[in-house]
Amino acid sequence: MALFSMKLENLQQLFVKELRDLYDAETQITDALPKLIEAAHHPELKQALQEHLRVTKQQISRLDRIFQMLGEKPTGETCKGMKGLIKEGDEIASQGGDPSTTDAGIISAAQRVEHYEMAGYGTVRTYAHLLGRPEMAQLLQQTLDEEAEADQTLTQIAATVNVEAKAA
Amino acid sequence: MALFSMKLENLQQLFVKELRDLYDAETQITDALPKLIEAAHHPELKQALQEHLRVTKQQISRLDRIFQMLGEKPTGETCKGMKGLIKEGDEIASQGGDPSTTDAGIISAAQRVEHYEMAGYGTVRTYAHLLGRPEMAQLLQQTLDEEAEADQTLTQIAATVNVEAKAA
Repeated sequence: MALFSMKLENLQQLFVKELRDLYDAETQITDALPKLIEAAHHPELKQALQEHLRVTKQQISRLDRIFQMLGEKPTGETCKGMKGLIKEGDEIASQGGDPSTTDAGIISAAQRVEHYEMAGYGTVRTYAHLLGRPEMAQLLQQTLDEEAEADQTLTQIAATVNVEAKAA
Repeated sequence: MALFSMKLENLQQLFVKELRDLYDAETQITDALPKLIEAAHHPELKQALQEHLRVTKQQISRLDRIFQMLGEKPTGETCKGMKGLIKEGDEIASQGGDPSTTDAGIISAAQRVEHYEMAGYGTVRTYAHLLGRPEMAQLLQQTLDEEAEADQTLTQIAATVNVEAKAA
């Protein structure tokens, strides 16, 4: 969330900046997921990450629609928070070790990413409501719900993976 | 979460690595909060961040106790995810602009930090249960509850701050 390349004078400006931050975060996730998918061992985990890649692309399209409605460009921000989170995932993906333990580590990193997005989308959804843009709030709520769902799916997969990692 | 300076062979090793990641994250937060407290304008926000600094120090003590129980050192990991999140907060703190909009940005950055920690503590709490360490799970759950509470407090403060930022 490199929000502050210029001074922010009101909530509308902060809203646009945060949307750009999320746009960059989603783009980073799209670039990073294929490596995690390849590194994952459990078929269920591979499938969940694959599904999340598909959903992430839809989420970017939703942000594109919002930027069109606002008459603003989606680019111009680098999400430093997501850069760090992605690095963590990359380290897991490129390291060897026990397969189930690696999968548990991938899930842990992915859930940190989901939580970042839940915080971010929760914030811009609230801003959209306050700014009298219910149509944008609805689109952002849809993404927020998907992130929460992805997080729950990962928790379910972890229930199996963690037990295997314990026994490794 | 620089989890993987060595190959991880089981959940116990991943547990220790993730605890070290959180230890580093909490230390980074302790170092970063004073700047955010100084930059915040709303007395309620200043107070909430001050309280969070106090709570964070207790959370570090809890981790210290867990490391003692494990007979392990708390150091050795750099939490890259938190580094990026802290940078975002720092940018807000050092930038000028409308006071309420700046406060809204600080809250947004702080909530991303809380969510990172909620994901992290949720994970290690689950690992502790699986590894048959209920006393550690209880300590970690206590921190997890505090993080969720801090997040809710920030949401409440945002309700006022955001409206003022909208009118700026």
